[in-house]
Amino acid sequence: MSTSTAKTMKGYGMKSVGAPGWLEKERPTPGPLDAIIRPTLVAPCSSDTHTMHGGAGPKENLILGHEALGEVVEVGNLVTKFKPGDRVVIPCVTPDWMAPGVQSGKSNAHDHGFMGSFKFLIQKDGVFAEYFHVNQADANLVHLPGDVAPEAALMTVDMMSTGFHSVELAEVAYGDTVVVIGIGPVGLMAVAGAQLRGAGRIIGIGTRPNCVKIAREYGATDIVSYKDGDLVQQVLEMTNGGADKVIIAGGGSDTFRQAVEMTREMGTIANVNFFDISDTLAMPAWSWGLGMSNKDIRCGFCPGGAVRIKKLLELIRYGRVDTTKIISHKFYGFEQMEDAFLLMDQKTPDLIKPVVYLDK
Amino acid sequence: MSTSTAKTMKGYGMKSVGAPGWLEKERPTPGPLDAIIRPTLVAPCSSDTHTMHGGAGPKENLILGHEALGEVVEVGNLVTKFKPGDRVVIPCVTPDWMAPGVQSGKSNAHDHGFMGSFKFLIQKDGVFAEYFHVNQADANLVHLPGDVAPEAALMTVDMMSTGFHSVELAEVAYGDTVVVIGIGPVGLMAVAGAQLRGAGRIIGIGTRPNCVKIAREYGATDIVSYKDGDLVQQVLEMTNGGADKVIIAGGGSDTFRQAVEMTREMGTIANVNFFDISDTLAMPAWSWGLGMSNKDIRCGFCPGGAVRIKKLLELIRYGRVDTTKIISHKFYGFEQMEDAFLLMDQKTPDLIKPVVYLDK
Amino acid sequence: MSTSTAKTMKGYGMKSVGAPGWLEKERPTPGPLDAIIRPTLVAPCSSDTHTMHGGAGPKENLILGHEALGEVVEVGNLVTKFKPGDRVVIPCVTPDWMAPGVQSGKSNAHDHGFMGSFKFLIQKDGVFAEYFHVNQADANLVHLPGDVAPEAALMTVDMMSTGFHSVELAEVAYGDTVVVIGIGPVGLMAVAGAQLRGAGRIIGIGTRPNCVKIAREYGATDIVSYKDGDLVQQVLEMTNGGADKVIIAGGGSDTFRQAVEMTREMGTIANVNFFDISDTLAMPAWSWGLGMSNKDIRCGFCPGGAVRIKKLLELIRYGRVDTTKIISHKFYGFEQMEDAFLLMDQKTPDLIKPVVYLDK
Amino acid sequence: MSTSTAKTMKGYGMKSVGAPGWLEKERPTPGPLDAIIRPTLVAPCSSDTHTMHGGAGPKENLILGHEALGEVVEVGNLVTKFKPGDRVVIPCVTPDWMAPGVQSGKSNAHDHGFMGSFKFLIQKDGVFAEYFHVNQADANLVHLPGDVAPEAALMTVDMMSTGFHSVELAEVAYGDTVVVIGIGPVGLMAVAGAQLRGAGRIIGIGTRPNCVKIAREYGATDIVSYKDGDLVQQVLEMTNGGADKVIIAGGGSDTFRQAVEMTREMGTIANVNFFDISDTLAMPAWSWGLGMSNKDIRCGFCPGGAVRIKKLLELIRYGRVDTTKIISHKFYGFEQMEDAFLLMDQKTPDLIKPVVYLDK
Repeated sequence: MSTSTAKTMKGYGMKSVGAPGWLEKERPTPGPLDAIIRPTLVAPCSSDTHTMHGGAGPKENLILGHEALGEVVEVGNLVTKFKPGDRVVIPCVTPDWMAPGVQSGKSNAHDHGFMGSFKFLIQKDGVFAEYFHVNQADANLVHLPGDVAPEAALMTVDMMSTGFHSVELAEVAYGDTVVVIGIGPVGLMAVAGAQLRGAGRIIGIGTRPNCVKIAREYGATDIVSYKDGDLVQQVLEMTNGGADKVIIAGGGSDTFRQAVEMTREMGTIANVNFFDISDTLAMPAWSWGLGMSNKDIRCGFCPGGAVRIKKLLELIRYGRVDTTKIISHKFYGFEQMEDAFLLMDQKTPDLIKPVVYLDK
Repeated sequence: MSTSTAKTMKGYGMKSVGAPGWLEKERPTPGPLDAIIRPTLVAPCSSDTHTMHGGAGPKENLILGHEALGEVVEVGNLVTKFKPGDRVVIPCVTPDWMAPGVQSGKSNAHDHGFMGSFKFLIQKDGVFAEYFHVNQADANLVHLPGDVAPEAALMTVDMMSTGFHSVELAEVAYGDTVVVIGIGPVGLMAVAGAQLRGAGRIIGIGTRPNCVKIAREYGATDIVSYKDGDLVQQVLEMTNGGADKVIIAGGGSDTFRQAVEMTREMGTIANVNFFDISDTLAMPAWSWGLGMSNKDIRCGFCPGGAVRIKKLLELIRYGRVDTTKIISHKFYGFEQMEDAFLLMDQKTPDLIKPVVYLDK
Repeated sequence: MSTSTAKTMKGYGMKSVGAPGWLEKERPTPGPLDAIIRPTLVAPCSSDTHTMHGGAGPKENLILGHEALGEVVEVGNLVTKFKPGDRVVIPCVTPDWMAPGVQSGKSNAHDHGFMGSFKFLIQKDGVFAEYFHVNQADANLVHLPGDVAPEAALMTVDMMSTGFHSVELAEVAYGDTVVVIGIGPVGLMAVAGAQLRGAGRIIGIGTRPNCVKIAREYGATDIVSYKDGDLVQQVLEMTNGGADKVIIAGGGSDTFRQAVEMTREMGTIANVNFFDISDTLAMPAWSWGLGMSNKDIRCGFCPGGAVRIKKLLELIRYGRVDTTKIISHKFYGFEQMEDAFLLMDQKTPDLIKPVVYLDK
Repeated sequence: MSTSTAKTMKGYGMKSVGAPGWLEKERPTPGPLDAIIRPTLVAPCSSDTHTMHGGAGPKENLILGHEALGEVVEVGNLVTKFKPGDRVVIPCVTPDWMAPGVQSGKSNAHDHGFMGSFKFLIQKDGVFAEYFHVNQADANLVHLPGDVAPEAALMTVDMMSTGFHSVELAEVAYGDTVVVIGIGPVGLMAVAGAQLRGAGRIIGIGTRPNCVKIAREYGATDIVSYKDGDLVQQVLEMTNGGADKVIIAGGGSDTFRQAVEMTREMGTIANVNFFDISDTLAMPAWSWGLGMSNKDIRCGFCPGGAVRIKKLLELIRYGRVDTTKIISHKFYGFEQMEDAFLLMDQKTPDLIKPVVYLDK
């Protein structure tokens, strides 16, 4: 695995906390099980800008990004299923499949430290680069199916996987009334995922017109806005005492309390929102029934690995969901990654999800 | 609870095995917890004709039928939620909620004998009558929502509840490939239910053109027919070694073997088909991986009770499924119950599900 | 159901908040499904004294108590399985089995209001009386098996059912490391229940010597005391980063935070502790992994009904657990209910659980 | 990874179907992720003799054995957690953790073909050799804890893991009545595992006195023998209509039918028995309630990997189970592997499980 041809490459990320910018870094090389990918289509995520602002602690000289499609350019000598030139979908979460956490049956394990399977976000340079590294390629890469549009596939790697996971955590059953707090891209995918798990009424909480429109297209039957009054009160009145399942897909620390209060006894709260390290999550004891309410409170980040993404791609192939609805902005060319990132940082009112086409 | 005003009534059913016909029976009276219902909309089911032909053993002078909407005409003195005049949906399965089986958390319990919670089918006169009896009205009746069409609601009481239960038994997960063997009314509901649980590819097995058409509308992506070759072989080829989940919603005793063979290792077979008492269900040991395949084999009949039906009605109210697609024939008037029943018995090629409107 | 023969009876409870004492109340009469029981063996519970002190809000002239064995003295005319003279075990939770909550499969439902299935605690006079009322006798009473000692059976109705439920909520698996916070009577039963669900290491948190002794007999491998330092720190060190499952069976509002901090990622916190209505339950976001930790937080009160108690009695009959170990004090005679209650209120250092024999 | 020092080694297995014997084979070398182990303690299993007799199809020149403790002698260059000299426990099932099956959360996956994670049994030379090969050492090896006796640890790798898995498959709940068909070493472990999952009554089916004795020590409350009459009839009478859970840990093809018939409605049948490739598994439709009984039928082989074994070792460390009770015969020295194997083949009446100490 000689690196005699090693050269540097360009990437976009953070120079230090609060300072986004272009970086020059060494081009990655694969270990025996790994692959090097040239990204062809990427998307910034609010966790990228969150990290840039220091939400994940002090970091510097770090390439960001974890949502990508790409072309394999190099593989380790133990990789058997992929070869240079293959077009691939890269899960944002790429576990070390030989670590203990995944042996317990969870692909979003915390091996090698907290959120250790979310390597692009936590442990190494991301995908906003000329090249990036994927561990255990045979277990973590997926060939891009010929019958799935690249943009649609790109949305599976985090937005759809995370949004659908919130529905799995919430254990949505046929006919359930489901509240989705926050109808940004993950919340919208949660709405779509809730409909595809058999939810009856789906109440989206949000305000921005384009998100509201797509939420309804994905199956939301009601929209609740803070502009019309207290959110908890509105949901309690609409649901005659609480929803069966409440999904937190956005919000601040107080959202935790609101979610518990909006949930009926025996219901479930499912969180996929990234709280801030300075937050305290608190609820009045009565809202949890003094500890007697049988309200489950669950959380988790995006499941990873190849099989997860393949399952989600099946839903696209068979027309169950159109993930491209959440793409609001398109950019073209490597340099425009910066514009896309800064747009994500500004969160303009019309923004849902930007993508950047890197191939000419 | 004097029966001094007791009078007889007319009903349709079986005089003896193989002899369908009109019967004159005593009008039922309610116990303290019960209700008497005048049916307004009913549907025959193939289990009715199966019973008439002796499939459930020797029976005589029995009114048949277990799918009905109706009007409450009398309630016991302990009933609090219903009163004469109420329009109600009646689950085909009406458990004794104070018996031990339901305390284990299953509404299709076998209290008071095998399938004892399916009282209309097993234990007493059915709904093809001027009046019928419902035990524990507060727990087993549902007010017909004003925003659900009666025909749509009628389909929940058995067809939808059973079809959707097969999907629950199969533990369908996002992106699963699901086979539904038999696309009669229950199988069609299983197809719709699989789509609403997040199935990717859905393979319906059947032949009749109208069923095939509706299966596709409900989400089937592929149709397999015995006319094109061995069913197992076809599915194994299409799925590259077996489906994730296989639902048996029709067929004979050999269907059991076929289902096991069609299922991939770690997959699940879910049966809601009524096998014949003379059947033997057999599989070659290799098809079950010599007992090492991790293929779960599950079965069960229609869950019952008010809450189950309310959950399914939510799916109709919020436009998740149109259950009326499976209604192929409509009859009008009490006397036409006979025509509807005999049509169900003949199973003409164009038959899916007949309904009979009893109100003028 | 005439009450022409109605007479008054004596009971012990609260005259008003903070004022325990003897009361004279009307003797209860059964509805058609109900039974009247003469208690023969009772036990006070800390929820009784908690209620007396106003923990459940303002109440007055209320007979307390919810743990009892007794003799049936009268049954409603629809009761079929019990008759006067039968010796019975009475679950502390006696659901209305015809209400919607139990149809979702949970015997500790919140029908008829919050904790509505815990009728003795929340909705009516308790068992510290000459007679008490049990709703739906056929579903909520259990014949005392001849081969189970009364004291052992008495411990099933709340202590064992609640303690074992905490283990069910925690989803203890083979080999798990389980922490039980609080080793009073419920916590001790949680320890026993954890061993009987396959826990490996069991860490009890407590200090009182007699509780520590019994905890070890029930399977605790380690005891942690606040006297030796910060509880969270001690557990994290012992477990190398957190326990698989943490059960809260006692403590104050800060116990919630401690439990979350003691739990490893992907683990589960299960609460059966009654928090105070004035408490706020709060955790730093980082302890829940910023909402990414996959730590489930669950709670619930004692499951109820006859089948639950029968299952627990099986464990006693077959020698799996000796529930009498937690009985620390024995009283004799109706009048001594007051002494037992006041002892429970004082919580002397040697107290675990007192029982009162009412039969001569 | 030069093999310039490659040499041959001795092993015991099958020359061809029906012909056990000593073999001379090439000493294995590790791939980059693998380890080579020198066995120090091994045990033959009935699957070994079953394979020798052709039960797994035609095979020749194959070293048998899959239960071993050993010393690491060589590791691949990517192995990080183990080094030569380490004393290790080797799970009999060693999945390829980068293959798709395990990503679905099951460590007994069928990757690389049927039972492909049971490599010693299906895919390569076994452990009855001077050296053997373990794939993905970091994920599949466990350091032998200093506080667990080697013999006790050896029993975890297949007997305990398989027996306890049958209890997991059966979903044993508190107070359940559990039948274990076959009380050989796996069945005995199922009995112990059932007690440790909270079973109430445990009925062992078997005849041999030493097995009966140990079954009782592990928690069996009743023993049923074919000598006393029809097995099904005996169990139905004892259980008043069927056990909650029935585990198949031995028997022939008719055992399948018996297990279904012994199970009450809503119960579960769990199979870990290796049926013969020529068997047909059949049940009368009525015994499965015509497909309406809600009896789940499940199967699976031994879960694998390091975490599984670590969890089981915890149960030994904390004194929850003494796995050495099932060891009936001890052999000493490499040559005695033949005697142990032939003893296992003969199945003398006093045999339960033999072990062979290979260290001087």
